[in-house]
Amino acid sequence: MKHLLSIGDLSAAGITELMDEADRFAETLRGREMKKLPTLRGRTIFTLFYENSTRTRSSFETAGKWMSADVINISASSSSVKKGESLKDTAQTLKAVGADAIIMRHPSSGAAQQVARWVDDIAVINAGDGSHQHPTQALLDAVTMRQKLGDISGKHVAIVGDILHSRVARSNAQLLTTLGAHVTFVAPPTLLPLGVESWGVEVSQDFDSVIKSADVVMMLRVQAERMRGGFFPSHREYATRYGLSRARRESMRDDAIVMHPGPMLRGMEINDDVADAPNTVVLQQVTAGVHVRMAVLFSLLVGTGQDLEGAK
Amino acid sequence: MKHLLSIGDLSAAGITELMDEADRFAETLRGREMKKLPTLRGRTIFTLFYENSTRTRSSFETAGKWMSADVINISASSSSVKKGESLKDTAQTLKAVGADAIIMRHPSSGAAQQVARWVDDIAVINAGDGSHQHPTQALLDAVTMRQKLGDISGKHVAIVGDILHSRVARSNAQLLTTLGAHVTFVAPPTLLPLGVESWGVEVSQDFDSVIKSADVVMMLRVQAERMRGGFFPSHREYATRYGLSRARRESMRDDAIVMHPGPMLRGMEINDDVADAPNTVVLQQVTAGVHVRMAVLFSLLVGTGQDLEGAK
Amino acid sequence: MKHLLSIGDLSAAGITELMDEADRFAETLRGREMKKLPTLRGRTIFTLFYENSTRTRSSFETAGKWMSADVINISASSSSVKKGESLKDTAQTLKAVGADAIIMRHPSSGAAQQVARWVDDIAVINAGDGSHQHPTQALLDAVTMRQKLGDISGKHVAIVGDILHSRVARSNAQLLTTLGAHVTFVAPPTLLPLGVESWGVEVSQDFDSVIKSADVVMMLRVQAERMRGGFFPSHREYATRYGLSRARRESMRDDAIVMHPGPMLRGMEINDDVADAPNTVVLQQVTAGVHVRMAVLFSLLVGTGQDLEGAK
Repeated sequence: MKHLLSIGDLSAAGITELMDEADRFAETLRGREMKKLPTLRGRTIFTLFYENSTRTRSSFETAGKWMSADVINISASSSSVKKGESLKDTAQTLKAVGADAIIMRHPSSGAAQQVARWVDDIAVINAGDGSHQHPTQALLDAVTMRQKLGDISGKHVAIVGDILHSRVARSNAQLLTTLGAHVTFVAPPTLLPLGVESWGVEVSQDFDSVIKSADVVMMLRVQAERMRGGFFPSHREYATRYGLSRARRESMRDDAIVMHPGPMLRGMEINDDVADAPNTVVLQQVTAGVHVRMAVLFSLLVGTGQDLEGAK
Repeated sequence: MKHLLSIGDLSAAGITELMDEADRFAETLRGREMKKLPTLRGRTIFTLFYENSTRTRSSFETAGKWMSADVINISASSSSVKKGESLKDTAQTLKAVGADAIIMRHPSSGAAQQVARWVDDIAVINAGDGSHQHPTQALLDAVTMRQKLGDISGKHVAIVGDILHSRVARSNAQLLTTLGAHVTFVAPPTLLPLGVESWGVEVSQDFDSVIKSADVVMMLRVQAERMRGGFFPSHREYATRYGLSRARRESMRDDAIVMHPGPMLRGMEINDDVADAPNTVVLQQVTAGVHVRMAVLFSLLVGTGQDLEGAK
Repeated sequence: MKHLLSIGDLSAAGITELMDEADRFAETLRGREMKKLPTLRGRTIFTLFYENSTRTRSSFETAGKWMSADVINISASSSSVKKGESLKDTAQTLKAVGADAIIMRHPSSGAAQQVARWVDDIAVINAGDGSHQHPTQALLDAVTMRQKLGDISGKHVAIVGDILHSRVARSNAQLLTTLGAHVTFVAPPTLLPLGVESWGVEVSQDFDSVIKSADVVMMLRVQAERMRGGFFPSHREYATRYGLSRARRESMRDDAIVMHPGPMLRGMEINDDVADAPNTVVLQQVTAGVHVRMAVLFSLLVGTGQDLEGAK
């Protein structure tokens, strides 16, 4: 594996290997005051973000720095890169500067794939491309589920909300079905992608029914700007039909967990109290994210199964 | 001490301990070409700034890096965090990523206190919250005064300008009165806070009279936008009555010093030549700032009185 | 040498020494997975950019980090520093914080010179000041030319495009004539500076004729905003007369090279295929840039000829 562009590029074994590696990093760092491994000392990692992201960028930056890599941040407004050629030149420039890895987020679906074609001999990590993929998010979600619930195979995961625009939903559906989970999308028909029948998931508009059997309820962020686009009538109606209210939370199985990729819109897609309840694992997801990103950087730049502390 | 939120949380002994620690860092680094201590290696520090600040952010970043910490910067426009819940989620996310300390600046008074309540087991450092507090500024001012004038007890400090909106004035008044200095606010009545009588300071509109006995004249920055708010009639009148002109500078005691938290508006609250005069200690304040921030990070993350080089 | 402000401050020997040092860094790092030298450990470098620059800022940041320096980035909108005094205070503040070097880009010609006067005992590196100078760009161009073509003396370099607004053209013309190259500016009369006759270069409007004898064709970026300023009639006419088309590329000598400081506007000043052709050395320029910036930081902070790994 040279790049991490899409969950679709990974086999079940490949996914599990990265999840295991993430757990190995978690184990290695557990309880340490000093979170610093020499693993990637002398490696140079660029984050190249064409969209704002506090959470993902700082998670990758932390992962790189904890492994002693040099991390250099570049944030660009997408307006400065309207042409494909520009992105090509930017990527090739970063490689020529000395990048060992480029972690990139871009509003266009497929952007990371293109970049990987242009700079094939360094590692490209897709940190979100349009509504297409966000593979480290799906991996960290799976790591969190496995920590809480054990083996993912056979579990029932409901993914709720704006599926249409969500790279998180797409990446998760691929990963979870590959590992043998059963996935149900809960969304209004206007927020489902065309051709969703072929994704190997079930689709429902009846959140109240689906929630009773789910092991995992994964809420997606509602992007307010979609609200005005006619995707559904009103905030209130959305919250009523697709929000995770207290009453719905109480209808969940006792051992079921609530997930959210963040940032949460409390009071919109998730009730404020539910967001802070014990089986809501949003912060565990964040912590798993650092370990997953360490695992991905490590396996791309060093190789899975190697000594985490590096051999240098 | 787990957090540094307000000077009001510190006793005289606590203040002096941090000042002593800052002097110890200054002494340790003096004359070294290589300013790098292993003290905080493997610790992760986030700066979370909802307001721009070149000076304070880079001072903290320098302090952290000189002690070998990993420092990760997040700058946010306050517009993206209109709801308290958002700030809560952001802070909890940074903790979940692995922050050992969050250094934060926020336009709302009390924001750092709230965050410290939400993420109580990591260190929160208030780098300015609205017009409320800026404790490391008051500490660095005190360190600078003590370096120049000796013991702070019994000294007379005039703080001049827009007291009403100034977290610097508020933090300094608390610290200085706690250490036994005598403080006079010099400001137009429109730029004094309600209830200032209870602060243990004197108030005057007669800069010419106050300046003659002051050991320290601390000028505050005039925020141009206040000028249009009817706080006083005109730039010229403000400069005439409350600016530190050459003539006023000459009426000061020979050993008295001029301070300013920066950035200075030369020609407005301070005359251009006075800003560069020998007893103007603005740049010494900046230097003391790095040592104070090292001391604060050290005492929160390691503990005062420990070996500065760390024991790891 | 305390600062690097302008190529005009360097003798032929001084230029060659920096180029040699850059080659020495390239040689030292060649083939290493771990690009990390201890050379500048404990040194603090600020980048202070009043104009956006992905390429130059990240190149300097990489150079500093590969030598183990602490690098702290400050980006400022020029609107916040309208007065010279402000820039003075900013520079003096960074020195007081503890900067060993300030790398600065500023829209005003001469800004770096002013700063060097204000903070004379730390290193100031000009990373571009208005249309005046960009010395590390000229050095990296020279290093690239020497790698490809051998000795620069006697070579013919055509610099093509918007000479008037280009600090790259100005710095290159100085460096190249100092080293004994023969330089021809190819540009419409409206895009040539007044007094260009005294620069020791030739001037031509006949690209087709000049290109046949050139060893190096250096294309400059066309700034679209100039297009509307009446500097020349239209995009199409500019591309026709001053663009590097495929036909023009084919009329070049076999061993001649094409250079561009980036970012390229493909289809405007340079044909898309030509931009990717084998003798186009744009990416080699980028790589040389990191080595040149390492050499400059090293020679200013340690001294040329010293052990690259440092003696600490």
